[in-house]
Amino acid sequence: MQLTPTSIIVLGLVERAGSATPYELKLAVAATVGNFWSIPHSQLYAEPERLARAGYLDEQRERSGRRRRTFALTDQGRQALETWRHEPVDGLPELRDLALLKLFFGADPRQVAPTQLAAHRAKLEAYEALAATDDGQGPRGGWLVLQAGIGHEREWVTFWERLAGPSADPMSRGV
Amino acid sequence: MQLTPTSIIVLGLVERAGSATPYELKLAVAATVGNFWSIPHSQLYAEPERLARAGYLDEQRERSGRRRRTFALTDQGRQALETWRHEPVDGLPELRDLALLKLFFGADPRQVAPTQLAAHRAKLEAYEALAATDDGQGPRGGWLVLQAGIGHEREWVTFWERLAGPSADPMSRGV
Repeated sequence: MQLTPTSIIVLGLVERAGSATPYELKLAVAATVGNFWSIPHSQLYAEPERLARAGYLDEQRERSGRRRRTFALTDQGRQALETWRHEPVDGLPELRDLALLKLFFGADPRQVAPTQLAAHRAKLEAYEALAATDDGQGPRGGWLVLQAGIGHEREWVTFWERLAGPSADPMSRGV
Repeated sequence: MQLTPTSIIVLGLVERAGSATPYELKLAVAATVGNFWSIPHSQLYAEPERLARAGYLDEQRERSGRRRRTFALTDQGRQALETWRHEPVDGLPELRDLALLKLFFGADPRQVAPTQLAAHRAKLEAYEALAATDDGQGPRGGWLVLQAGIGHEREWVTFWERLAGPSADPMSRGV
């Protein structure tokens, strides 16, 4: 099978957790990777079983009760992750920003800005609260990504504040 | 039909241009909207005909030669765009950043940073060159979006410079 970014996310999160159910994976994505890699939930649910069939994960199913499935990494899965870590990344991030699309096609900035400002402020606060809990002991990758997120959320808050403010003059070149 | 962001992009770009062929739309997306709204090319190619069948665009086909199709807005299309401009935007932008995914899952920052730094520097330069040609006369939405892009590219350049630099200590909390 072709390993997609969704495959890597599942393998990587299972590695971090030791083992995980599909529901635990969903929660882990929402709390971490989902902030910088959007995945449709349907993809995420189908992926562990695909990876198990191809030998990258080991599946255990409860014999009774809810018969939950729990997935753990195989050696093949661990090796695939390690190979992926060393593959180069070319190209820029993909963005889908509906608010910028509105501005671009002529929506009134003062109509778009307030809800965007509130959403980005809330996200910035959440990131800053998370950063405050860091004890310097966990894996540093998560810390670096969080710093990137904080930097960009500050940038968004500044941008939308200018457009939302009572003195905002969105037609000005000075914006 | 359901108007998706891809529909709106086609309608909006046709409105800006007066009329456009599918090839001209592809170029316009690459030069503008594609920077903050990723669309697969296949979607973009199929969309004008869908919109024409549903009455949002008017299609003209050359009678000879390459039989190129040219699309223009109908009143229904213009009205749909105007309605969309006033619909609120909730939620945050979606991002897909493979380089952050690498950092998060433990890739060496010094391996990831150099190509990201180069790509973001090139994009920042392109945006700044575009901003320098602005005469203050065009639609302001494009100018605002360009300012957002410049702010974020500066943020990316700063972030990756720290990780790429010879004195970079990616394990430090100070990053």
